[in-house]
Amino acid sequence: MRYALDADPVITLTSGPVNAYPDVLRALARTVLYDYDPAFQLHYEQVIGKMQTAMRTSNRPVILHGEPVLGLEAAAASLITADDTVLNLASGVYGKGFGYWAARYSPNQLEIEVPYNQAIDPQQVADMLKANPAISVVAVCHHDTPSGTINPIDEIGAIVADHGAYLIVDAVSSFGGMKTHPEDCKADIYVTGPNKCLGAPPALTMLGVSERAWQKMKDNPAAPRASMLSILDWENAWSRDEAFPFTPSVAEVNGLDVALDLYLAEGPEAVWARHALTAAATRAGILAMGLDLWAADAAIASPTTTAVRTPEGIDEAKLRATVRERYGVVMSSGRGETLGKLTRIGHMGPTAQPIYAIAALTAFGGALQALGHPAPVGKAIDAALAVIDAAA
Amino acid sequence: MRYALDADPVITLTSGPVNAYPDVLRALARTVLYDYDPAFQLHYEQVIGKMQTAMRTSNRPVILHGEPVLGLEAAAASLITADDTVLNLASGVYGKGFGYWAARYSPNQLEIEVPYNQAIDPQQVADMLKANPAISVVAVCHHDTPSGTINPIDEIGAIVADHGAYLIVDAVSSFGGMKTHPEDCKADIYVTGPNKCLGAPPALTMLGVSERAWQKMKDNPAAPRASMLSILDWENAWSRDEAFPFTPSVAEVNGLDVALDLYLAEGPEAVWARHALTAAATRAGILAMGLDLWAADAAIASPTTTAVRTPEGIDEAKLRATVRERYGVVMSSGRGETLGKLTRIGHMGPTAQPIYAIAALTAFGGALQALGHPAPVGKAIDAALAVIDAAA
Amino acid sequence: MRYALDADPVITLTSGPVNAYPDVLRALARTVLYDYDPAFQLHYEQVIGKMQTAMRTSNRPVILHGEPVLGLEAAAASLITADDTVLNLASGVYGKGFGYWAARYSPNQLEIEVPYNQAIDPQQVADMLKANPAISVVAVCHHDTPSGTINPIDEIGAIVADHGAYLIVDAVSSFGGMKTHPEDCKADIYVTGPNKCLGAPPALTMLGVSERAWQKMKDNPAAPRASMLSILDWENAWSRDEAFPFTPSVAEVNGLDVALDLYLAEGPEAVWARHALTAAATRAGILAMGLDLWAADAAIASPTTTAVRTPEGIDEAKLRATVRERYGVVMSSGRGETLGKLTRIGHMGPTAQPIYAIAALTAFGGALQALGHPAPVGKAIDAALAVIDAAA
Amino acid sequence: MRYALDADPVITLTSGPVNAYPDVLRALARTVLYDYDPAFQLHYEQVIGKMQTAMRTSNRPVILHGEPVLGLEAAAASLITADDTVLNLASGVYGKGFGYWAARYSPNQLEIEVPYNQAIDPQQVADMLKANPAISVVAVCHHDTPSGTINPIDEIGAIVADHGAYLIVDAVSSFGGMKTHPEDCKADIYVTGPNKCLGAPPALTMLGVSERAWQKMKDNPAAPRASMLSILDWENAWSRDEAFPFTPSVAEVNGLDVALDLYLAEGPEAVWARHALTAAATRAGILAMGLDLWAADAAIASPTTTAVRTPEGIDEAKLRATVRERYGVVMSSGRGETLGKLTRIGHMGPTAQPIYAIAALTAFGGALQALGHPAPVGKAIDAALAVIDAAA
Repeated sequence: MRYALDADPVITLTSGPVNAYPDVLRALARTVLYDYDPAFQLHYEQVIGKMQTAMRTSNRPVILHGEPVLGLEAAAASLITADDTVLNLASGVYGKGFGYWAARYSPNQLEIEVPYNQAIDPQQVADMLKANPAISVVAVCHHDTPSGTINPIDEIGAIVADHGAYLIVDAVSSFGGMKTHPEDCKADIYVTGPNKCLGAPPALTMLGVSERAWQKMKDNPAAPRASMLSILDWENAWSRDEAFPFTPSVAEVNGLDVALDLYLAEGPEAVWARHALTAAATRAGILAMGLDLWAADAAIASPTTTAVRTPEGIDEAKLRATVRERYGVVMSSGRGETLGKLTRIGHMGPTAQPIYAIAALTAFGGALQALGHPAPVGKAIDAALAVIDAAA
Repeated sequence: MRYALDADPVITLTSGPVNAYPDVLRALARTVLYDYDPAFQLHYEQVIGKMQTAMRTSNRPVILHGEPVLGLEAAAASLITADDTVLNLASGVYGKGFGYWAARYSPNQLEIEVPYNQAIDPQQVADMLKANPAISVVAVCHHDTPSGTINPIDEIGAIVADHGAYLIVDAVSSFGGMKTHPEDCKADIYVTGPNKCLGAPPALTMLGVSERAWQKMKDNPAAPRASMLSILDWENAWSRDEAFPFTPSVAEVNGLDVALDLYLAEGPEAVWARHALTAAATRAGILAMGLDLWAADAAIASPTTTAVRTPEGIDEAKLRATVRERYGVVMSSGRGETLGKLTRIGHMGPTAQPIYAIAALTAFGGALQALGHPAPVGKAIDAALAVIDAAA
Repeated sequence: MRYALDADPVITLTSGPVNAYPDVLRALARTVLYDYDPAFQLHYEQVIGKMQTAMRTSNRPVILHGEPVLGLEAAAASLITADDTVLNLASGVYGKGFGYWAARYSPNQLEIEVPYNQAIDPQQVADMLKANPAISVVAVCHHDTPSGTINPIDEIGAIVADHGAYLIVDAVSSFGGMKTHPEDCKADIYVTGPNKCLGAPPALTMLGVSERAWQKMKDNPAAPRASMLSILDWENAWSRDEAFPFTPSVAEVNGLDVALDLYLAEGPEAVWARHALTAAATRAGILAMGLDLWAADAAIASPTTTAVRTPEGIDEAKLRATVRERYGVVMSSGRGETLGKLTRIGHMGPTAQPIYAIAALTAFGGALQALGHPAPVGKAIDAALAVIDAAA
Repeated sequence: MRYALDADPVITLTSGPVNAYPDVLRALARTVLYDYDPAFQLHYEQVIGKMQTAMRTSNRPVILHGEPVLGLEAAAASLITADDTVLNLASGVYGKGFGYWAARYSPNQLEIEVPYNQAIDPQQVADMLKANPAISVVAVCHHDTPSGTINPIDEIGAIVADHGAYLIVDAVSSFGGMKTHPEDCKADIYVTGPNKCLGAPPALTMLGVSERAWQKMKDNPAAPRASMLSILDWENAWSRDEAFPFTPSVAEVNGLDVALDLYLAEGPEAVWARHALTAAATRAGILAMGLDLWAADAAIASPTTTAVRTPEGIDEAKLRATVRERYGVVMSSGRGETLGKLTRIGHMGPTAQPIYAIAALTAFGGALQALGHPAPVGKAIDAALAVIDAAA
């Protein structure tokens, strides 16, 4: 049998959007309240409170009403001024991309770029900062999703803090799937969202903002105000007594509310553990098939995505198409520079379950075989199962 | 009995957000597909197709992934250049507000402003254009929601077209509730959304863009690109074969899909008729209670909102609080300059039903009486019922 | 405008089924668990626990998996034997109907029947019991829904208990909408359901069973066992450790779960109060229009239904059709002997809100006027509003 | 990691209830209409129409408002009289069980019973009928779910039809998952439901009734009438113009409606094919692990359930508990005589997808290994994948 392209697949195992938890899906269908209804204003304040608990911040986080690229663009626009010297850390397409936004707001930009299957070395950051005392803003992507690799942001954050620069962190596809919080890495602006490891749909940004970042943005006359790109507009919107600068995305806030409930009820540590185990099982299986991880070192492979290097002679688009057509499973391609070179199997939110590693390996290996590349699936499953069972 | 502030009200009769149609709510809970899944890409193309049918445009409309203020800001940012002379038409808080966005992009701005309970006179626009041949962009708000008043955009649009200027129309809270379409008013950028008369939640912009507006934006090097504020980024996103510039709000697109189905299945003319009838019944009741409409002339009162002037001596915030607390009904306040001066009863989407005029009049009149202002509710209901029955 | 017969109405104000609370509707969409999954077995035990709290019984109540007529038939089949003498109390179509079921299981039947707009007089019951010491089972309908009238079951129950007979109570459409519980009326089998005042859909029976009723059923070899009509089969099904006799209606149990949560969270007394107030407002309006309640005495009119006597010369079916067609409002007819003689306006669960009394009166009065019967709607609304405001 | 017993599992792969299709779940949350609302009455008629299309019957099928055991009990109670001689065919717990119901209504009963891992031999039926010309009713279970085995009902039906006896078929867990329809097997009463292969929750019976069965029931004065057990009561309920004998389960009808839409839209043949392929893949894997199918002959194993014989020395309850605890997967036990002797992996509705065969085999094999029984999972997956790929 073949799965039709115009019908829903059986399982979506992408690096996001992923399907939402069933409870989150139903929350999206809650009665839509008027945003100035006191019941909604209280609700919004409570959701911000749950975000603060989940993000473990000492001050209130912020919701922006667009998917996390809004948060990243808004961070660049709000925090970076022409007086800043920005150090952009690029270990992948997303990290690299942030540099383009940063460059709109300051002409002074330095960059550390490493091959897109490697991670930023904190020592290199320390050296760069030492050599360039003027650096006032550092930007780093935690999980560069198109590569499936993780940068050591807590170490980098400590170095940046010592230097005194502001730190902007893109933790969109890591937060909620592994141990990372704004204050763990001393981020000044920490951008994440509900649509990856929290298992909600894409439409919102979750933002951690340090007190000094608020101040820097207020001091920046060019920081967006009365704009969709504004962070400042939303500073007090958490309060049931304050106005919203524009209409919040009511249904998405309802979804986020339940996503946070689920995350906190299951327990963050337990959630991270099943992301890690799913990733470990997947990787054991990939290696057992004689395939290569994209990450140069398994230690930097993300617990929320397994990026597999496309074998020689295989058309990656055809590979994913075969995975979907034969097994009803959807995976992610690379993006930009990594497009065609790797396939990404996501382990995020509701799909961060070890049994889905089994499904992923079988579909991926089966498709490779179908395209003529050897892929001993049984061996992969045995290897993955050994990892799962070792954790039981 | 009193309705608690922290519990959902019984009926939301605001000028938006309004509760969504039940079918739309359930659509929000659909399986979240990966945005690059072929099933989703096809779905997106189909939704754009339904939008085109509903908006009656000769080319494909665009979805932006933020509530309609994004569309308005994006229109100003994309279409207006420093070489333009902009004529802003302000008959209310929203029309006035657009001028501030416009002024960011061009220093050359003219304005016609009328009292916020009146409408723009097309003749005055014609005169202004004649006197200022350099005017190259005109902006007008169709339904200035905080006033509940309608500007004659089809007439204005014809005049602007004769002049040759570009026209930006804010039809956020009129489209879907009355006869208005981008090409009826010869708009170059026509901004609306699902969250008013289409009965879906707030989170998306629906945009009609003329061919020459696409060209002007492409010719504008300052038009946002690779930005949340970009319209250009989305030009080809309708196609199942093209990439999205960033992740679309999957759940909201699913909601819009069903909102469009409902609108087209009921029949636009039938939908407009029940908006108009609900408004007419409400107004007959308001007048029968000896109260005043905010609109200077009933002919310019919107079929999607009835704005009632706050009687002397009444605290408007307390009035709405009483409506909610006693009857479980939620209404909208004014905004900005109209705040405190009027209360708005919305007739939008699922609440554009004549029987809700009865509920609104009773709650509003009852609350006035409770605050000591005479409001003969029975007379209001008889008057409203006469309107409803005359249309039966 | 006219509402189409093939489209959903705007408001359903019937005596059940009523629309469910939005939260209950969404609960029906929960993941369907395997009935022997430990998570479901625990859930079922918890739902039974919530039922016990809501029904205020000293032992565990029972769910039967069919709408409450199943419970009534099962009660007759299980409790009544050929050795019993049954006294059936009939003040309406439903009470009368129970007698037919009872007669299947015992040839010895007595009945007190009163006109269907009156209530049973407890003194008459006392007299009958005194005169017929053999009476061993008494059956009474609390709210005879087709009449909208209430029997004094707590008083009757005390008399029956003194006599020593078993009491079967049909409280299907009263429980949850007014103060009534199995042990308040000393019922041996008390039949109710989620689909009236609890605001859930029809599909389940909720059963209170006294210890001695369990014993009598066990002692009855003819009591259904291994049957859809069995109560005994379900005695231990509440326990997470016991088997279900057949597959429970998983989705409906999920809906009931949330309906019970809502009832307990709002507070039973508060729920009853809004049922009572909605009924009182409706009646004040009906009388103000010069119409007659069906109930011979307002004191026996149910707080969950207002039955209005059809005026002379009016075709009741046409009246309800007009109510739906003109105003999008749905009301209930009578049934059996009361069919055509009255119209019922339900006040149940989500529709037990005073503002819906206003909608009901307007639609009902408007339809009467349309059919040529005088119905001063404005006066009705003023009268209803006075009742609502007196309680504010 | 271990899955908690009080939390939802990851995947339910039982023989029913199975989780419903997402679209069906959302349909359960539709607005609950009054059963006598013309929109609902029309809807009910349309659902019956879709059932007729799906069941391929020449007359209208019937919905009973309880899970399919209601249909089975009702069939026995309605069709079988004391004058009948009943031949019950028992190849499993369910077939055997029907005999007990049948015996309530006729003392004249014959039975062919075969070991519960075998199927009924049509020749034996032919012989029995020849030897007992008085046999007037034959009952057979198509898929005896506790055994996972299929009886050849089309062949049996042809033989019974030649004899002239009435045929009662239990096709609860086969219809919708393989080619079987009431008229294919010449059934007089054919009992199935939405809660197995149609992917809806348990709460309804779907009944095919031949014209002569209607007549026999009408001629049977003991056939239940005015009863939950009645089929006759519902004869005309399909019509929008007829009354319901009691309140239908509105939400469940809404769910069935969408389940039928999905079945018909995907195409019955395609649906059956994916059930068959999932079963075939599962079996190949089971055999590759050196395990035994319960069915004596693979040819009689159901395409909707794979029953695996419990290996010597394994505690079956512990095996399933391990499957759930380690992998979050839920499977079914045997029932009655097969309890403890086998585990059932369901392939029904949304779980009849080959990729779930992979998940099932891994979880099942992994659990066996954990309990000390050799189970080469990798070999199982390779074998299953070969089956899947052969069909690609």
